[in-house]
Amino acid sequence: MQERSRVAPWAPPQAQPRLAELEAEVSGLSLDAVTRLVDAVLAEHRGRLDEDGVVLYAGTNTMSERARAAHEISLGCRPSMGWPGDKRQTGLEELDVLEVLVPLQIAALMGGEFAEVRLQSATLANLACYSAFAGPGDTIAVLPQAAGGHTSHHAQGAAGIRGLRVADLPYDTGRLDVDHAALPAFLRERRPALVVLGASLMLFPYDVARVRAACDEVGALLLYDASHVAGLIAGGRFQRPLDEGAHLMTMSTYKSFGGPPGGAVVTRDADLARQVAAAAYPGLTANYDASRLAPLAVVAAEHAAGGSGYADRCIANAGALAAALDREGFTVVAAHRGWTVSHHVAVDAGAFGGGDEAARLLAEGGVYLSGVGLPGRPAGEPRRGLRIGTQEVTRRGFGPDTMGEVAALMRRLLIDGQTPAKVRRDALALRRAIP
Amino acid sequence: MQERSRVAPWAPPQAQPRLAELEAEVSGLSLDAVTRLVDAVLAEHRGRLDEDGVVLYAGTNTMSERARAAHEISLGCRPSMGWPGDKRQTGLEELDVLEVLVPLQIAALMGGEFAEVRLQSATLANLACYSAFAGPGDTIAVLPQAAGGHTSHHAQGAAGIRGLRVADLPYDTGRLDVDHAALPAFLRERRPALVVLGASLMLFPYDVARVRAACDEVGALLLYDASHVAGLIAGGRFQRPLDEGAHLMTMSTYKSFGGPPGGAVVTRDADLARQVAAAAYPGLTANYDASRLAPLAVVAAEHAAGGSGYADRCIANAGALAAALDREGFTVVAAHRGWTVSHHVAVDAGAFGGGDEAARLLAEGGVYLSGVGLPGRPAGEPRRGLRIGTQEVTRRGFGPDTMGEVAALMRRLLIDGQTPAKVRRDALALRRAIP
Repeated sequence: MQERSRVAPWAPPQAQPRLAELEAEVSGLSLDAVTRLVDAVLAEHRGRLDEDGVVLYAGTNTMSERARAAHEISLGCRPSMGWPGDKRQTGLEELDVLEVLVPLQIAALMGGEFAEVRLQSATLANLACYSAFAGPGDTIAVLPQAAGGHTSHHAQGAAGIRGLRVADLPYDTGRLDVDHAALPAFLRERRPALVVLGASLMLFPYDVARVRAACDEVGALLLYDASHVAGLIAGGRFQRPLDEGAHLMTMSTYKSFGGPPGGAVVTRDADLARQVAAAAYPGLTANYDASRLAPLAVVAAEHAAGGSGYADRCIANAGALAAALDREGFTVVAAHRGWTVSHHVAVDAGAFGGGDEAARLLAEGGVYLSGVGLPGRPAGEPRRGLRIGTQEVTRRGFGPDTMGEVAALMRRLLIDGQTPAKVRRDALALRRAIP
Repeated sequence: MQERSRVAPWAPPQAQPRLAELEAEVSGLSLDAVTRLVDAVLAEHRGRLDEDGVVLYAGTNTMSERARAAHEISLGCRPSMGWPGDKRQTGLEELDVLEVLVPLQIAALMGGEFAEVRLQSATLANLACYSAFAGPGDTIAVLPQAAGGHTSHHAQGAAGIRGLRVADLPYDTGRLDVDHAALPAFLRERRPALVVLGASLMLFPYDVARVRAACDEVGALLLYDASHVAGLIAGGRFQRPLDEGAHLMTMSTYKSFGGPPGGAVVTRDADLARQVAAAAYPGLTANYDASRLAPLAVVAAEHAAGGSGYADRCIANAGALAAALDREGFTVVAAHRGWTVSHHVAVDAGAFGGGDEAARLLAEGGVYLSGVGLPGRPAGEPRRGLRIGTQEVTRRGFGPDTMGEVAALMRRLLIDGQTPAKVRRDALALRRAIP
């Protein structure tokens, strides 16, 4: 076996053995062998979705059968440039319908007037906003990475692609919100073009109105990245950022929203919307993958019809899981504020070797989630927390009464030190017991 | 009916009636009504693919049944960050297989050593290269838009997102290639970080080796955007840019390649590949839509098994269609060079009101293609040409013997002025006669 992988010889040393093993496995395959291998991969994937344990990732979901049935990838192979009625291509009249329907749906659901839905991810939705409203060398102010600030807000991510300077907003680790007392002076000093709220872990709402007031003093635009909480906002069960003063809201169309992969930008301001649209096309797209729009239309209609119930169930599950984890002996983050009012829960995994190590052990036992940095920890410390989201298990039918069993699986793996293989059997049984 | 659309009141006046008509049609629909509407859209789309005339777009395609069967959108809802063996998430072992298989396949097919396959489009593949190798304020040199230079190469597109200055390469409109005599002095004066070859219309190869030699004199990197011709390159039937000296090649995974929507960057240089990988993640993606990788693996294996035959058929169809159009009285571009050696053909539509107007008429008659600017025409002139690609009709089973019938349909619509409805019946009959 070679020493360095061929695919990515620069990947970290811990990745090299796995890469080399896979390279040996997949090299030199015939068409039939590739087809069989891909079939096996998909079968394994479907098995994991349907029976292989408890998926508590904060940023994943499963689509309804109705939405999945609406996805037709060949629609994404038709180029479509420009507005309906002024398309660069002919023969796309049926796509016109989706290109009008989906922006109207998303804008209405999220409390906006305009929605840009062509971008393939929330990262690109953020980049479209940066490109529209900040130029290279301009500053944006974002939540620190230790507060869950997303990669796409930071210099190593999409903000760096645009050549922006990134300043960390003053942050109150106790309240898990912006340090509002320090904010006005900070904004006067740094003069950001954009202030970005939103993070990879969102247990509680931010005081958006207060941040907006401070932004107005310095002429900054306020962008709320709702990637994780879009499904709750759609259901009216989390703060409504555009009601509370955000100029722009970006979102992921999967995660808690539960649609196909993709992103969107929503606003109430036609002039901002026009600039975002120009950044989306021809800035960041030429042809775009329009196949996403069909399932997205169905999912948006599902939210409009019953989204508040789904959001309620996600939140009830998170509350029940947080309480159960607390009873089982875990240190659940933000106990003083009641742990969570969203679908997210965070656990301090310092006693278990940190979040990533704990997540690996949990996966062996059939419980899938990931590590996360925790606010107030020293910079550079490995991710100390475990991040949980209830949106997928909620869609799969788990209710608050099963959250005690989920917490018990985690306790057996992390606190009791039981053999993962043994716990895994019970995790699979729990998963399969849900209809 | 309102005067301005709600979705895009800033859209051009010619788009407003269609937007307003659609808004009235789709507003206030129930979940069931949305589901029925989306079903109708998809049925219309499938009908257009399967029976509704002759699709000659230069930038579209249809996937094989084998590849379509390998697409499972739920795979795109699983976050996957980092290399196999060093993933941020757990429970993704099956995805690891695709993340190693596909880069190896694409690199081998395209004559490279490394392939970055996570980006959702060729536009983003170009942006990843810009971000890795040019900073805001740096210059890139690209083919003029009048020579088919792609939007993503220009300031209103992805180059502008990165804050680049864009200089038009000196261009020889007679030879449809870079003006090699003028190139060295141009490069010495403008000192671009990157030189970009490739365009939306590629009838003939470029002299890549000569451009590379000039790049070496000024330390510029050479990027070849193979978006349109990747399927021919995979089949070994067009120039091999990495063999001929390009440092980097970007490509679209649909168009002539015939896979799912998406992009890739291929290179032979590990150091360049490492920098592109960092621009792709965490620069331009966090989670990415991995569902594309399964059909892409199948399509790549199809090219490896029989891609040269497919490329030969695309090229033979283009040659036959160009000759037939010439016989029917059209002015086919580049007659002095034999019209084309690729799957593209271009027609001067100046006599028919320009390319866009001619494309509209052709669509009414069941022939789908789009307008394109032609080299050597005055800046600002509306698109004068018609752009044709044979990749999709080739996949659908059209052979050179049917190209005369296709050219005759176009003659009847554009030269004879026959009623589109009448021609459309024959276009549909031709399409349906192909098994």
